[in-house]
Amino acid sequence: MIDTADTSVCRIAWIGTGVMGLPMCEHLKKAGYFVKAYSRTLAKAEPLKEKGVQVVDDIAEAIEGVDVIFTMVGYPEDVRSVYFEGIFPHLKSGTILIDMTTTQPVLAEEIATKAAELECASLDAPVSGGDVGARNATLSIMVGGERATFDQALPLLKLLGKQIVYQGAAGCGQHTKMCNQIVIASTMVGVCESLLYGSRAGLDLDLMLTSISGGAAGCWTLDNLAPRILKRNFDPGFFVDHFVKDMLIAIEEAKRMNLDLPGLDKAYELYRKVQDLGHGALGTHALMLALEAAHRGDQPT
Amino acid sequence: MIDTADTSVCRIAWIGTGVMGLPMCEHLKKAGYFVKAYSRTLAKAEPLKEKGVQVVDDIAEAIEGVDVIFTMVGYPEDVRSVYFEGIFPHLKSGTILIDMTTTQPVLAEEIATKAAELECASLDAPVSGGDVGARNATLSIMVGGERATFDQALPLLKLLGKQIVYQGAAGCGQHTKMCNQIVIASTMVGVCESLLYGSRAGLDLDLMLTSISGGAAGCWTLDNLAPRILKRNFDPGFFVDHFVKDMLIAIEEAKRMNLDLPGLDKAYELYRKVQDLGHGALGTHALMLALEAAHRGDQPT
Repeated sequence: MIDTADTSVCRIAWIGTGVMGLPMCEHLKKAGYFVKAYSRTLAKAEPLKEKGVQVVDDIAEAIEGVDVIFTMVGYPEDVRSVYFEGIFPHLKSGTILIDMTTTQPVLAEEIATKAAELECASLDAPVSGGDVGARNATLSIMVGGERATFDQALPLLKLLGKQIVYQGAAGCGQHTKMCNQIVIASTMVGVCESLLYGSRAGLDLDLMLTSISGGAAGCWTLDNLAPRILKRNFDPGFFVDHFVKDMLIAIEEAKRMNLDLPGLDKAYELYRKVQDLGHGALGTHALMLALEAAHRGDQPT
Repeated sequence: MIDTADTSVCRIAWIGTGVMGLPMCEHLKKAGYFVKAYSRTLAKAEPLKEKGVQVVDDIAEAIEGVDVIFTMVGYPEDVRSVYFEGIFPHLKSGTILIDMTTTQPVLAEEIATKAAELECASLDAPVSGGDVGARNATLSIMVGGERATFDQALPLLKLLGKQIVYQGAAGCGQHTKMCNQIVIASTMVGVCESLLYGSRAGLDLDLMLTSISGGAAGCWTLDNLAPRILKRNFDPGFFVDHFVKDMLIAIEEAKRMNLDLPGLDKAYELYRKVQDLGHGALGTHALMLALEAAHRGDQPT
């Protein structure tokens, strides 16, 4: 069994070098590992070359001779094709697969089953903390899979995050991420509606936030995103489009479990309006724009 | 103009000695003021006698000869009758009125107008922080009214709370409290749905909370009420019935401003189900019981 803490023997492939994957891949390289990287859009991986990462233009080439494969791509269908078309046909036994994309729990289970057939082990290890967390290696990483695989991979995960928790069998990392997104979805609705109400009531919103942020309404969204909304800065920490993808996974998973989540359904419906307004590439707090747009017609003049 | 910081001259009446009002009234007495108290249910004020508060059985008697009148009662209709039937007919000019009940912004404006006619001044000063905040004098107090009245009353408010913010004209304290409740309503929906999802997915909910509490999903509700839900402890910090009252005020106020708040509407609908289940006297986190009840029929056995 490979010692992943030993940078002189453990070789790594990193697939997916977007806004999250790029800095995460860099952390591993900086720690001294041999790292090969692949990105569907090759230009995105380019900056890694000067850090000493070997950038290749083919998944098969990326995973040849490595011990651990990380993936951090976009949508569940990307994860599926990367694994079932790109990785599995070329996988050597004993490899550890770590998918850090947020995707369906059931897909994580499928990957785990297929990996086991090939005498490999896999982890689903989605993260929260956004691009800032990725750059500062302060991500929260929620991990599903075999406990032994988690223990083996831990030295590598510690290079990427701060709060790393083993959540249970394959899929449990993804389920935990869904729990995270379900809280965020409704919290964002509450924060944006509160700002809209306060604005319409003629309050000084900075003063209002001073009154409510420290108490029972206190939350990360109020502390970090409400001030950006007041500055009309809707730059993405986390993209609306990706959040909608995550909510849809949670909704489908809930349906599969015969579970009704009316608040999440409502948040999803509102976020679809954000997309309809053409704001899918803005940050999640752009929910405010959809709530405002719904009332533009009847605002007092 | 009375110096409210001078305990030897400033005389106080306190009306409403429930779970919030009782300890708040005590703080003023402890600071050395002459305090008279009235409660509709006289037995509730009884414990104040041994603290040196003069308990009386009539509002007119309570407010006779005092400089500042505090009210902390239950519902808007209570506030209305206390002021328009109890206080105003017997009010001497120069008195400061401070309503700390959560009530309609428009009612706060009516009280301010009537007070001005009688050459008095009023503040709407609702609080957040619950019974714990009331006992420890750590409430957040959101104040509307004339700035000069706020400045004059500040020495007294400082005995009751920690975060005391002047929010603007009459009604602005109540509007700020509505902003607070709007955030809390949807946040509670998100937290309960997240726990329900996690439970149904078979996660260890303590581990799940460890993963998500420190990040973008982080909130007071997750830190303080989720653990109580896991212990099935639904004792009230804040009553469902009172929260429903607050949400209804916000919904009606929003309607008046021609404002649609779909997340708040959904939360209100869910909380009405909590009441229908007979749980109005439990804490706000009993929302969990309504979400669970909706699925009891189709839970896997």
